Amino acid sequence: MFERGTVMVNAAILGFGTVGSGVAEVLRENAEGIARAVGGGIKVKYILDLRDFPESPFGDLVIHDFDLILCDPEVTLVVETIGGARAAYDYTKRCLAAGKSVVTSNKELVAAHGQELLELAGEKGVSYLFEASVGGGIPIIRPMLSSLAGNRIDEVFGILNGTTNFILTGMIEKGRSFEDMLSEAQNLGYAELDPSADVEGYDAARKICILAGLAFGKGVRPEDVSTRGIGGVTLRDVQYAGEFGFRIKLLGRAYALPEGRAAVYVGPHLIPERSPIAGVDGVMNAIVVHGNAVGECMFYGPGAGKLPTASAVVADMMDAVRDAAAPRNAHWEAAGDGYLVDARDIDTGWYIRTSESLSALRAALGVGKIRALREHSGELAILTENFTQRELSAALGDLNIGSMFMVLG
Amino acid sequence: MFERGTVMVNAAILGFGTVGSGVAEVLRENAEGIARAVGGGIKVKYILDLRDFPESPFGDLVIHDFDLILCDPEVTLVVETIGGARAAYDYTKRCLAAGKSVVTSNKELVAAHGQELLELAGEKGVSYLFEASVGGGIPIIRPMLSSLAGNRIDEVFGILNGTTNFILTGMIEKGRSFEDMLSEAQNLGYAELDPSADVEGYDAARKICILAGLAFGKGVRPEDVSTRGIGGVTLRDVQYAGEFGFRIKLLGRAYALPEGRAAVYVGPHLIPERSPIAGVDGVMNAIVVHGNAVGECMFYGPGAGKLPTASAVVADMMDAVRDAAAPRNAHWEAAGDGYLVDARDIDTGWYIRTSESLSALRAALGVGKIRALREHSGELAILTENFTQRELSAALGDLNIGSMFMVLG
Repeated sequence: MFERGTVMVNAAILGFGTVGSGVAEVLRENAEGIARAVGGGIKVKYILDLRDFPESPFGDLVIHDFDLILCDPEVTLVVETIGGARAAYDYTKRCLAAGKSVVTSNKELVAAHGQELLELAGEKGVSYLFEASVGGGIPIIRPMLSSLAGNRIDEVFGILNGTTNFILTGMIEKGRSFEDMLSEAQNLGYAELDPSADVEGYDAARKICILAGLAFGKGVRPEDVSTRGIGGVTLRDVQYAGEFGFRIKLLGRAYALPEGRAAVYVGPHLIPERSPIAGVDGVMNAIVVHGNAVGECMFYGPGAGKLPTASAVVADMMDAVRDAAAPRNAHWEAAGDGYLVDARDIDTGWYIRTSESLSALRAALGVGKIRALREHSGELAILTENFTQRELSAALGDLNIGSMFMVLG
Repeated sequence: MFERGTVMVNAAILGFGTVGSGVAEVLRENAEGIARAVGGGIKVKYILDLRDFPESPFGDLVIHDFDLILCDPEVTLVVETIGGARAAYDYTKRCLAAGKSVVTSNKELVAAHGQELLELAGEKGVSYLFEASVGGGIPIIRPMLSSLAGNRIDEVFGILNGTTNFILTGMIEKGRSFEDMLSEAQNLGYAELDPSADVEGYDAARKICILAGLAFGKGVRPEDVSTRGIGGVTLRDVQYAGEFGFRIKLLGRAYALPEGRAAVYVGPHLIPERSPIAGVDGVMNAIVVHGNAVGECMFYGPGAGKLPTASAVVADMMDAVRDAAAPRNAHWEAAGDGYLVDARDIDTGWYIRTSESLSALRAALGVGKIRALREHSGELAILTENFTQRELSAALGDLNIGSMFMVLG
């Protein structure tokens, strides 16, 4: 626990959904420890929502008029848990411009407008913090900015989406189909009725953009990131991967390249079974960071959920209070043209599943380019030596390919 | 990266051994990023050592007179990488008393005198930081104090010693003996010629005391912690554990109990193969933290080594600079009598290996108390239901027991 003088901070929560209500609960449940750590306490003065919550113990804090918060000089700290990049964007800008610190779990907003909002916070001398936007409750943003700050970070990658990891884990562990696991995820509330943001990798793309901004100091837009989801991963792929000693995981990945460039992308990868991240199952997330001094670190924990996400939001609120005199904001610049390497030029080993013959594959790829091989009932799975996707596509020509995924390490 | 005004801080390094020289290297190698992040830069003005280092690029910074550092008002930041609790303790107290911030990798000193040194730092308004004292390069201290600060932490445990984990991993993976792996660890420089601090668990005990202080706010002395090393772990135990679906790891563990008490101890544990910490191999370390909001998080990475440890020291130096106006020190109080539960009263499942017969074990432990059972050439290995060690010892009486270890989870 930190020691500090006494302060009492009035906060407002924008959006009383899952995360917003979790924040109110954690602030109440752990009030004593929080007060001791920040030296006074954090009081929720308003909760902004379109709805009323007469049954909630926080129901009488609920208001519907944002201007009450904006114009109340007592409110110096605002939690934005609305989500999306419309109202959340507008409210965040107006709060920061009014000199209020803002804490958020909104990865969509941070990925789309983080640079601008961080600059505005810097101008106004307030905090804009977003620990909860990546990895839910896992401490990752602050450790990258603080505990690993003495490193030049070369690479960051991770299992950034719990829904897709839940689906893949069920396919791997129980041999259940993608469709079956998706509907279970929907029944359990892990996946939306429209699951495309998770399943097609867009959620992971937003998160890897935020991590890339932190790691390399350059903003990357999700729409510029090559993004492939798990829709193409079949049970047969999962089984072949297992036979090769790998597990299939959806990774967001960013690594530094010579001349100040970087590769940033999202896609299914085969990961060696013995690497620590291969054992990250179900809705858990994990982020691996490689720095030039520390080597490889991994941060593991619940990537979503009401209380874990609220844990990260509340930690940011506490940091905003403790750093009020000298806010510690992240900072990234716009990446210039040519900063991102085309994903088709990433040099990597590949997993390929095909109904073509081994001799056809050998002829296409060249002698000695197949590292490992499995065959079942006329179908072939191979692991290749390194190729870029461009080279591989050219070499395979119009051969009939079932699946093709990158291999990590 | 954080934005800040320009500062130039003069630092001194006490002790130019492995970690001290790593700190100088990381500060030089990553000078640009560090300067950008702290807004100015950190310059090493002196290196204190008894020896001279004419071949080192930092050789002309080496001095032999501590008073030069103590009396130089330009030096506001001191790195203590001497180790031990004698000269390091004396120098640290005098630097803090003189109003200089101190950063250390010295777990022995922090475990023995952390409370006093933190209080002194608090009185003088400077930082006393020790990220590198637990888990080497792994960010754990600052995340516990910052990113997880909104939680009530219930439990922290981990693989805190790389040498013993290297030895156990070789026994598990390669079937090599304890003695064989120990001499390999010594040849590789992982273990000291006198390996007792590692092998007998004292190093892990110091680290779990530090983690317990952070987690629960009460200081625990290593000499009060039940500490058992890996000397009693045999190849047969490792094999039986594998057959039961477990791996044997040396854990330091601290968990909160009702009425404000806690259990803190070190010993070999059987860990379920599928838990993330079971896959932490070789010299890597990992720390699991359980908080009431976040649930379970794990921090994984290199637990020792020159540059990883230096990475953590340099991060602390940067935090000391950035927080100079309002230092963020940890804080723990002396634990009263009766705070620690006697390790013999911890209720847990057990692994037992014995040459006694199954009927003798059944008679001793009671019907239905044996969860799993393996038998090879007249030897028996069992997993039990929960017992305290006291209950178990009473029940087993003078039966002949080969090994007896706790089972996690």
